[in-house]
Amino acid sequence: MKIVIIGAVAAGSKAAAKAKRMLPDAEVHIYTDDTHVSYSACGIPYYIEGNFDDYRTLLVRSPEEFEHSGIRVHLRHKVTKIMPASKQLLINNLNENISFLDNYDKLIIATGASPIIPPIRNNCFKNVFTVRKIEDAINIKQKLQDARRAVIIGGGYIGLEMLEAFVRNNVYTTLIERGNYLMPALDEDMSELIAEELCKIHENKFEIITGQAVTEFCGDEEGVSTVEVGSGESYEADLVIICAGVKPNVELAVDAGIKLGVTGAIRVNNRMESSVPDIYACGDCCEETQIITKAPVWMPLGSNANKEGRCAAINCCGGFEEFYGVLSSAVTQCLGLTISLTGLTEKEAAKAGFDTVSAKVTKNDKVGYMPDANNITLKLIADKKSGRLLGGQAVGAKDSDKRINTLATALLAGLTVEEFRRNDITYAPPFSTSIDMLINASDILSAKLNQK
Amino acid sequence: MKIVIIGAVAAGSKAAAKAKRMLPDAEVHIYTDDTHVSYSACGIPYYIEGNFDDYRTLLVRSPEEFEHSGIRVHLRHKVTKIMPASKQLLINNLNENISFLDNYDKLIIATGASPIIPPIRNNCFKNVFTVRKIEDAINIKQKLQDARRAVIIGGGYIGLEMLEAFVRNNVYTTLIERGNYLMPALDEDMSELIAEELCKIHENKFEIITGQAVTEFCGDEEGVSTVEVGSGESYEADLVIICAGVKPNVELAVDAGIKLGVTGAIRVNNRMESSVPDIYACGDCCEETQIITKAPVWMPLGSNANKEGRCAAINCCGGFEEFYGVLSSAVTQCLGLTISLTGLTEKEAAKAGFDTVSAKVTKNDKVGYMPDANNITLKLIADKKSGRLLGGQAVGAKDSDKRINTLATALLAGLTVEEFRRNDITYAPPFSTSIDMLINASDILSAKLNQK
Repeated sequence: MKIVIIGAVAAGSKAAAKAKRMLPDAEVHIYTDDTHVSYSACGIPYYIEGNFDDYRTLLVRSPEEFEHSGIRVHLRHKVTKIMPASKQLLINNLNENISFLDNYDKLIIATGASPIIPPIRNNCFKNVFTVRKIEDAINIKQKLQDARRAVIIGGGYIGLEMLEAFVRNNVYTTLIERGNYLMPALDEDMSELIAEELCKIHENKFEIITGQAVTEFCGDEEGVSTVEVGSGESYEADLVIICAGVKPNVELAVDAGIKLGVTGAIRVNNRMESSVPDIYACGDCCEETQIITKAPVWMPLGSNANKEGRCAAINCCGGFEEFYGVLSSAVTQCLGLTISLTGLTEKEAAKAGFDTVSAKVTKNDKVGYMPDANNITLKLIADKKSGRLLGGQAVGAKDSDKRINTLATALLAGLTVEEFRRNDITYAPPFSTSIDMLINASDILSAKLNQK
Repeated sequence: MKIVIIGAVAAGSKAAAKAKRMLPDAEVHIYTDDTHVSYSACGIPYYIEGNFDDYRTLLVRSPEEFEHSGIRVHLRHKVTKIMPASKQLLINNLNENISFLDNYDKLIIATGASPIIPPIRNNCFKNVFTVRKIEDAINIKQKLQDARRAVIIGGGYIGLEMLEAFVRNNVYTTLIERGNYLMPALDEDMSELIAEELCKIHENKFEIITGQAVTEFCGDEEGVSTVEVGSGESYEADLVIICAGVKPNVELAVDAGIKLGVTGAIRVNNRMESSVPDIYACGDCCEETQIITKAPVWMPLGSNANKEGRCAAINCCGGFEEFYGVLSSAVTQCLGLTISLTGLTEKEAAKAGFDTVSAKVTKNDKVGYMPDANNITLKLIADKKSGRLLGGQAVGAKDSDKRINTLATALLAGLTVEEFRRNDITYAPPFSTSIDMLINASDILSAKLNQK
């Protein structure tokens, strides 16, 4: 039995480790065009910020550890073709630029995703970075040392995490978001709180420009010095970060006749099987099922990648495991502000055909007399017809994400607002108010539902 | 319509406010033997600790505010008899020691609970306190100013909160718990972690004595100077706190022919109606239904009191509201350690007839490279036969309670382990590991269930 895995950041490395544990006698090979395997890409902003100094902290498992457990790791080996009919792979050893063939019994595609580069004139400077690989992390951190000003293009998860990293390093930062609000994953009424809250705490350390697309870089052989947006306005920069979203790496799969889903990522069933026999896909390159709508979604997140890698390995080793899908739960933080969500936003719910009703409360995360009490704004969304909870978003103090996880469980179970508001949530002054905002918001939502 | 409420800490004051809002024309009276109404008793340890200086911060709503909204507040007026046949009350004005009669159309009993005083020889000193009322808070805080050593009797919620308060004020503290472990609400394998963890961080600032009952106080007219336990060992103290549990205040109800439940607290239905028409009970004086077992339990907590007060008021004003019951969720903190639980412990589950299986994991609350990553030990308990989740306990870093709330929602929904492990929990390095401990523990529990 020979199991070959293409790509090994989160999903691929999880799959490799799990497969070898399940079938110790199987040959397990990892091919990757990367120079590293098994690293926490999500941790890169925290390394750049300075939470730790050695990039190797980001490495979960070294190639040597994989080899030690009997897994063959081929770094800088790019798989250039999958030939399902003959169960062969064409591989290019990037170090020596030599191509060769290998075969597989079971193949796991974990090729991940790549940054989207928006169309910007003169985008070829050496101080322009994306945030994806270990090399990016090392290069940005080095460049940061003598930077005074930075421009971040994109105000999603990574954009906000990089903003935090730069501000904490006293680099004045201009964050430019093409849309009208930061974090377009949220409903606008929640998104608009983010810039508001951030500017309240940290004025003069950064600026946020929304509703403007970057059109041009200007600079010389030293790199970009200013970044121009559609309005003609320009912003100084000693370094530029592009975090304008990612796209799934599916060329290899498409070329092999593997079907993509409507999201543009590889379509898999709930055992992570692709449309081609003996080929599995997992992680950022494949799509998921949204638990509430049962529709395909693409949620390229580390938590999903880990579960999917594990699931792919179990099934490819002859076991039986299902990946149930996602609730689209996610979280990030920026300068003390936690932003998290689960389920459907109102706009997504409307698109999915729901007639929604929502409730929003702003309340202390703990009793007001505790010195570190802080506001959280929580929005709950329900289906008007059935009263079923559809989603929620929270913006505010540190552990607001955990309220979202409490809600996620309700979504998983398909609870109605009436059922959820019976919840018995822990209370003590350092942890919540005697009636937690989750219950408050549910009570308001319940009243609204009963009116209609 | 005349609504009379006896007692007004959490449940009573909530009921009064809600009743007046629902029926603005009704006469609403509060009778209490206390000198304060509507205060956060749960906040007393945090006031003593020094999180804020003015005890009035603990007052949620002043008597004047109640009066202003049309609610009559009778402080230091002790109701000494309820006469349901004539719908009358006998009341003693404690200020003037004059008794008089009043009548009611609807009566809400919110008499709360009182500290249990264990049998200790010479227990009549002026530096011995319980922690219940505003006066206790003021007296303890004052006494603390020139104390060097304290003894706390009882290692439950309040005992641990007072330990934190004293240690933070540099008062060397001996905490004496009669049982073998702190926090007897937890299973022993979780309880034993508490003393272990506390002593790791804060040695030399306190000592914890378990398995010893306090037998005698020794001192002079200045107060207790030493506290003796069963073994003969004695401990110095400039002040002594007794927090050996509470008992429901039910004498008045019993005398009026109102039925108690098996827990010894007032029995109510899910509309908070007692066994006597037009008499409701809510808060610490009444019992609840445990959602999992459907059996009566007594959970005298502020969160329940608030909900029950609200429910009693709605029903007593002609509305319809049900209090669904409790999951026995609770949380406390001590010196940075969070202790929380929901549902049934293994010992409770066994008592309720379940054959249990459990899983315990110790894992970082966030990714290990984040500077404030900290361990949480999480225990999940399930029913071997059905695979249904029954409860969980967590001891560790700050927001471990929020994992317990995620679990509480699963208990509310009656999820099995197989269902719960499909959960999609938010992930980012500052908030959790890529596979959160809740999912890890569920995976382990699932494997154990499948083995059997």
